[in-house]
Amino acid sequence: MAKTLDPKAPLRLGIAGLGTVGVGVIKIVQQKAELLSKRTGHPIVITAVSARTRDKDRGVDISGYAWEDDPVSLALRKDVDVFVELMGGADGPAKAATEAALSAGKDVVTANKAMLALHGQDLAIQAEDNGAVLRYEAAVAGGIPVIKSLTEGLAGNRITRIIGVMNGTCNYILTRMENEGLPYDEVFAAADALGYLEADPTLDVGGIDAGHKLALLASIGFGTQVAFSDMVLEGIERITISDIRHAADMGYRIKLLGVAQMTGRGLEQRMTPCLVPDNSPLGQLENATNMVVIEGDAVGQIVLRGAGAGEGPTASAVLSDVIDIARGTRLATFGQPARELVKAKSAVAATPAPYYLRMSLVDKPGALAKIAAALGNAGVSIDRMRQYGQLENPDVAPVLIVTDATSRHALDHALEEMDATGVLAEAPVAIRIEAV
Amino acid sequence: MAKTLDPKAPLRLGIAGLGTVGVGVIKIVQQKAELLSKRTGHPIVITAVSARTRDKDRGVDISGYAWEDDPVSLALRKDVDVFVELMGGADGPAKAATEAALSAGKDVVTANKAMLALHGQDLAIQAEDNGAVLRYEAAVAGGIPVIKSLTEGLAGNRITRIIGVMNGTCNYILTRMENEGLPYDEVFAAADALGYLEADPTLDVGGIDAGHKLALLASIGFGTQVAFSDMVLEGIERITISDIRHAADMGYRIKLLGVAQMTGRGLEQRMTPCLVPDNSPLGQLENATNMVVIEGDAVGQIVLRGAGAGEGPTASAVLSDVIDIARGTRLATFGQPARELVKAKSAVAATPAPYYLRMSLVDKPGALAKIAAALGNAGVSIDRMRQYGQLENPDVAPVLIVTDATSRHALDHALEEMDATGVLAEAPVAIRIEAV
Repeated sequence: MAKTLDPKAPLRLGIAGLGTVGVGVIKIVQQKAELLSKRTGHPIVITAVSARTRDKDRGVDISGYAWEDDPVSLALRKDVDVFVELMGGADGPAKAATEAALSAGKDVVTANKAMLALHGQDLAIQAEDNGAVLRYEAAVAGGIPVIKSLTEGLAGNRITRIIGVMNGTCNYILTRMENEGLPYDEVFAAADALGYLEADPTLDVGGIDAGHKLALLASIGFGTQVAFSDMVLEGIERITISDIRHAADMGYRIKLLGVAQMTGRGLEQRMTPCLVPDNSPLGQLENATNMVVIEGDAVGQIVLRGAGAGEGPTASAVLSDVIDIARGTRLATFGQPARELVKAKSAVAATPAPYYLRMSLVDKPGALAKIAAALGNAGVSIDRMRQYGQLENPDVAPVLIVTDATSRHALDHALEEMDATGVLAEAPVAIRIEAV
Repeated sequence: MAKTLDPKAPLRLGIAGLGTVGVGVIKIVQQKAELLSKRTGHPIVITAVSARTRDKDRGVDISGYAWEDDPVSLALRKDVDVFVELMGGADGPAKAATEAALSAGKDVVTANKAMLALHGQDLAIQAEDNGAVLRYEAAVAGGIPVIKSLTEGLAGNRITRIIGVMNGTCNYILTRMENEGLPYDEVFAAADALGYLEADPTLDVGGIDAGHKLALLASIGFGTQVAFSDMVLEGIERITISDIRHAADMGYRIKLLGVAQMTGRGLEQRMTPCLVPDNSPLGQLENATNMVVIEGDAVGQIVLRGAGAGEGPTASAVLSDVIDIARGTRLATFGQPARELVKAKSAVAATPAPYYLRMSLVDKPGALAKIAAALGNAGVSIDRMRQYGQLENPDVAPVLIVTDATSRHALDHALEEMDATGVLAEAPVAIRIEAV
């Protein structure tokens, strides 16, 4: 994959997508030309851009750049060395233009987690077959250099576990619910008003966006093909303020937590709400900040924390990839040749853990006994249980249970049996308690 | 600096120094040969080693490696591509062998912070003049990929400040003093018994070791020549358990904190005890863990945390450099050509801050007034002050003062005037309160 610029020759970028991140990249390239040139040995310049709307005040001067309506044409321009894809979307123009660039042997830098989570394996092969590199530091945890740390800095380790809070919007919602005692719907609406949510908000609150990111980290860490479809996904939509308070009473906080680990039964990948100890680095994470914890057999635990989104942080990550390319650093997309990545067997929640269960029982004699029996029959033992009255609806009794460590399989078995008893007033909420 | 291995050719290491870190490196190379080969495309092998004592059970089999008594001979061997320097010591054999390797155009990977802090500029020039690379991830904060994050991951930023707790032994001592209420001398002795201290313990508790690390980060971050001699150094030897308690009462913890920042008056570099908010990531850092906080104009604040020492973490960092070299990644030692690094003007504590002052006054009427006057005359205003009785020694009155934000210069002026009044029973302790 050797591909070196002539000494002092400029590295020419074509940028497709002029939203927040694209504008951030343009600002850095324009304002720090001298610094970038010193650090890489090459001027870094933008030669052409593309976006949906040409005439729009973006707060940066793009008049010196050639304009292309079609990102594929942009990617194929002779005066573009690196195609910078900042349009987003798993398919459509982003993928078409990325493929065009790679086929032409051009390097690609992208912030597109969805595209990589769904098509990363194919795109990585295409890059490697054409002597191009495909980099995506900005796709995971914004400005935190986590792709670099995992692919390069910790490459002497057998990675044992990757944990992360990687959706700032979810953490913002959960933190505000906790700190201000507000219900989910209200904070969700506030986040929406602030523009924190994706056009399809289930990408955020459903855990999909964060799941895309985790799938990429798992591939690098475990040398496996990206397998987003194997990820267990659960959003934060059903978390209530009382769940947050119960968790706090027990010394925990609720986070939308990603966990990837290689188990004896296969690769476990999940992005679900979890209880984590409130004195752990993850438990202490407030607002929209992201955190990724990487555990390796030699290094122990490394914690990386920073802004997971926003113009500056994301542009910083894009630039780090561009700078690598300018310096001649050429790495395989997932840290080893894509054709050598193995297809991992998927293990769904193979590792046992205690669970927090919240359920509402119809207020009939024997209801609680039926719940306890269902757990017992599935081999799930109870660490503590609490039933309490509720003024608003005296016909329903809220019950809180913390189980001992159990497999998700056994727990699901118990939940099915509970459902069949007819004593549940609504579907129970089960939240894993993760040791971090 | 292009220098590439033939496809599939092994990368051959010569390791000088078979202490904890050397043994850790050997273990990784032996135990993870397949993984390393997959990740780099080249077998990574050890061909020769060197140490002070040949016959010693190190828990690893070195019988397959050639032995050299002299590390210079090791560095110059034809079958060594990368000289791995793990002997330590700023001068002597480590420097001689490093220079020999670089002169011969061989790449060097080292964990030697002292050598780089004192001779980094010369060695970097030597490396670059000979087309070699000189890497040292293991020299700073053990397993945390901080050199990589700063040099590469955040290279699109103008770095504004670097803060770090980078001496695990000092943090261990301060944490145990706080958690167990033990005096400094006792915890120091315990750390010594555990083998946590360098042969010369002032390297640890005097802040020198951590200062070496900070000087390297400052050079990369600010594009300046390493200037360890400009660093303001102050150890933790005079911190008492009562300082720790007073700090805690005010919501702070005491850390041996490194701060490097470029100010209008020049480069400020200091490694001194500081008070930091107890709810900040730095304030929450316990035991021997290290943390480095990097602030950049685009990325905001990035926090990196992990084990700062030990066999596995340090070997992990050494391997990351070796892996970079095997992959063909070739970077300038301090992130840009050494000849282009500027010699920074040194600014001693240019940024103002509040200070915590602890002093013992001779118990005479008017003593406190003289102290207050000295502060006032120097333009230092008092945020709060407390004088309290002391049973053991009724002739001396301990006084605690927190100032408003002031320059260190004004404070030193006040301390001099206080000294001249003759009311101080001993030299005061002044600890900066750092906003982190």
